[in-house]
Amino acid sequence: MLKGISCTLYFVFTLSPSAVSQTREFQADAQFVDKIYDYSLTEGRCYSWLEYLSLNVGHRLSGSAGAAKAVEWGKSMLDTLGLDSVWLQPCMVPHWVRGEKEQVKVIGSKKGRSFPMAALALGGSIPGKVQAEVVEIKSWDQLESLGAKGLKGKIVFFNRPMDPTKIRTFEAYGGCVDQRVGGASRAAKYGAVAVLVRSVTMRIDDYPHTGTMIYDSAYQKIPAAAISTLAAENLSKALKEDPELKVSMQLQCKSLPDAPSYNVIGEIRGSERPNDVILVGGHLDSWDVGHGAHDDGAGIVQCMDVLRVLKNLGYKPRHTIRCVMFMNEENGLRGGKAYAKEAERKGEYPLASIESDAGGFTPRGFSFEGDESVFGKFFDKLMTFEPLFEPYGLRFTKGGSGADISPLRGMKGLLSGYTPDSQRYFDYHHAETDTFDKVNKRELELGAASMAALVYLIDKYGL
Amino acid sequence: MLKGISCTLYFVFTLSPSAVSQTREFQADAQFVDKIYDYSLTEGRCYSWLEYLSLNVGHRLSGSAGAAKAVEWGKSMLDTLGLDSVWLQPCMVPHWVRGEKEQVKVIGSKKGRSFPMAALALGGSIPGKVQAEVVEIKSWDQLESLGAKGLKGKIVFFNRPMDPTKIRTFEAYGGCVDQRVGGASRAAKYGAVAVLVRSVTMRIDDYPHTGTMIYDSAYQKIPAAAISTLAAENLSKALKEDPELKVSMQLQCKSLPDAPSYNVIGEIRGSERPNDVILVGGHLDSWDVGHGAHDDGAGIVQCMDVLRVLKNLGYKPRHTIRCVMFMNEENGLRGGKAYAKEAERKGEYPLASIESDAGGFTPRGFSFEGDESVFGKFFDKLMTFEPLFEPYGLRFTKGGSGADISPLRGMKGLLSGYTPDSQRYFDYHHAETDTFDKVNKRELELGAASMAALVYLIDKYGL
Repeated sequence: MLKGISCTLYFVFTLSPSAVSQTREFQADAQFVDKIYDYSLTEGRCYSWLEYLSLNVGHRLSGSAGAAKAVEWGKSMLDTLGLDSVWLQPCMVPHWVRGEKEQVKVIGSKKGRSFPMAALALGGSIPGKVQAEVVEIKSWDQLESLGAKGLKGKIVFFNRPMDPTKIRTFEAYGGCVDQRVGGASRAAKYGAVAVLVRSVTMRIDDYPHTGTMIYDSAYQKIPAAAISTLAAENLSKALKEDPELKVSMQLQCKSLPDAPSYNVIGEIRGSERPNDVILVGGHLDSWDVGHGAHDDGAGIVQCMDVLRVLKNLGYKPRHTIRCVMFMNEENGLRGGKAYAKEAERKGEYPLASIESDAGGFTPRGFSFEGDESVFGKFFDKLMTFEPLFEPYGLRFTKGGSGADISPLRGMKGLLSGYTPDSQRYFDYHHAETDTFDKVNKRELELGAASMAALVYLIDKYGL
Repeated sequence: MLKGISCTLYFVFTLSPSAVSQTREFQADAQFVDKIYDYSLTEGRCYSWLEYLSLNVGHRLSGSAGAAKAVEWGKSMLDTLGLDSVWLQPCMVPHWVRGEKEQVKVIGSKKGRSFPMAALALGGSIPGKVQAEVVEIKSWDQLESLGAKGLKGKIVFFNRPMDPTKIRTFEAYGGCVDQRVGGASRAAKYGAVAVLVRSVTMRIDDYPHTGTMIYDSAYQKIPAAAISTLAAENLSKALKEDPELKVSMQLQCKSLPDAPSYNVIGEIRGSERPNDVILVGGHLDSWDVGHGAHDDGAGIVQCMDVLRVLKNLGYKPRHTIRCVMFMNEENGLRGGKAYAKEAERKGEYPLASIESDAGGFTPRGFSFEGDESVFGKFFDKLMTFEPLFEPYGLRFTKGGSGADISPLRGMKGLLSGYTPDSQRYFDYHHAETDTFDKVNKRELELGAASMAALVYLIDKYGL
């Protein structure tokens, strides 16, 4: 399969610059964009904010004490920026707790063939204690063809790895995360008693990667856990030598009643069109392991710095520029839904919504989407901005944006995803290893600068 | 100052794709390039080679036992690839040894104001034991204006940091490495007794970064050491509070007689123009700290994989494709000089020489240079290849290439530097922290694939 964008699109990409780059306007914009990068790389605060969030707040799953502490911290930081308003937007969030450490063990049919496996219950899983034989599954077809006859009473082991030939790792993630999200119910349909899922990462190591899973109410709920890729390789090997082996697993996680929480919001009011909002956002919640440094502490602190940098450079926006720290992206999107509902109620127009939720790595570009009726016009306008990002190595593409802003889709604004380099993201994603030390200061700052520059251009020229 | 390339050049960049992208040839090339990336990301061996070189050979400064072991290892690896020939090319190299750990200490003029500083002697420094007052220098002008009156008998502390506003960190490196290379003699000219140099990195941490320094024979040789950026910040602060403080330093390094060593070379012979050579190279030597993983173990293993990947995909080159592991890039360039001399003697034509010596990070592009009389033609041809790299995020620019291949400049071939993302490179460069764990498998493999793809296109179409 050929990777990458069509030649036609490439052609669109490559005609605009020369046109724009002639104008004096272009030179002025280039100078202000340059100022934004210079300031972000010398006076940026996002890295020290991330250090505090990582080391003093730590992970912050929706409903947890950490999440409450993060809300408090986020608001207190926005309060220091001299914005026009800062507020908390309430939403009820799921409250799932992991409980005692998971116990997952291979029990060989012959002596001395037993070994423990590094595992994490999937978010939303029911608790449970089971011991059963294991069936390794590499494809949905294989699952369907085995059916109840092959799966009843068994633990289903989903072991389809990420495709390493995908250059953008998010594509590879999209190609196998379905095992994690929907595997339990698809296996329960045929009477499976539990599922183990290979961690969704390309690294072979012993850190399990958790993430959300969703039960289909049509079927029995069964326990679901991720095992490390190393454990997955070992289990697969062990099954070939010893098809009768059993796995015993005990998960003590459970779902508690929904809990109150908040989106944290701050804005600089627009001087001409205050009702048209340019949003920069990420999510404040994280999984309950590591620091949630790349996912999505990085996005949060970058968005805070976007407002701080523009304000400190004396920029007075025409439209309202708003930073939104969404709550509950990881397991419910309640914050995103509450935000969209409120925007609709207030009759705001989400002119442009830019999400940073792909890690704090070196900027590679922005991805854009929008309502068909207007997107063509938007994208042509955006392409006139692209050459201004050339010195910083960013490209513009058509594609997805972000989960938290997806509930805004109906409102016909521009949606954009900030797209940093993706090679390392899934090494740490949803794992103990997503810690502050994995984030490079400059890479993080360059991302904040890139978003601030895009916000400036959209605010100045509209869409 | 505006960063980035001129609009004209950008215009050149952006016209070629559409032209090329129409042809059927383009589709065929795109498919083979895709094959190269797929194979490199699934069957690449560069990462496991780097693991061995890092953990079992370790650092390998010219003349050291490590360097000899690296030569042996490099040849033995090339011998496994079924190339047409593998050989060692002799050269004499400098043999500088660090000796006992450096002792560098601040001695406050008042009690309790003393503290040790993390330091590494600069490569080539003479040994010495001195204790003297310190003068902090931020610019050459400042040094010159102080002159003998201000510097005689003092330790000169060069504390000009890297410029964080440079997007390409190599530009920032170029902007202050002169302190490290030439600072000692320029200070000795005015009677300074030793120099301390702020480590050339943007990170603020306690790891000193060494590197080569060169004495000007017109002046007294004086001891020279790098101190960590943290130590530099502390020393600068201490000097403001206590201008009379002294620093005591003891370096036990020394230069031994030149030692015999080798470039390690392997090639696939060209079927049509065997005398025209497409070279991929990096340097096998490293500084005597860390693993030399990014500098330049990464380049070495990528170049080995370029030949392996093309061979394993069944590609039969028209020109000779040669992998060169140069010896002594870090402190003498003897390997590069010996190689160029031999190429000239044999009447070879270095059609294209591509060096990977900027770390094993995500590919961003290639930089090209060449003799004025032919480079224009070369570059126009190269630009027709660029769209084939679009799906992988690489851009072509005019600029520098690599130190090891620079002695080939006179021979009118194309010179190219592989340019990965530069943000993290100087975090580790020439420091204890340049270790295997800092290299990401996919980022390394993508670099090898990118070089293999460029070699394929240059071999197929010539220049």
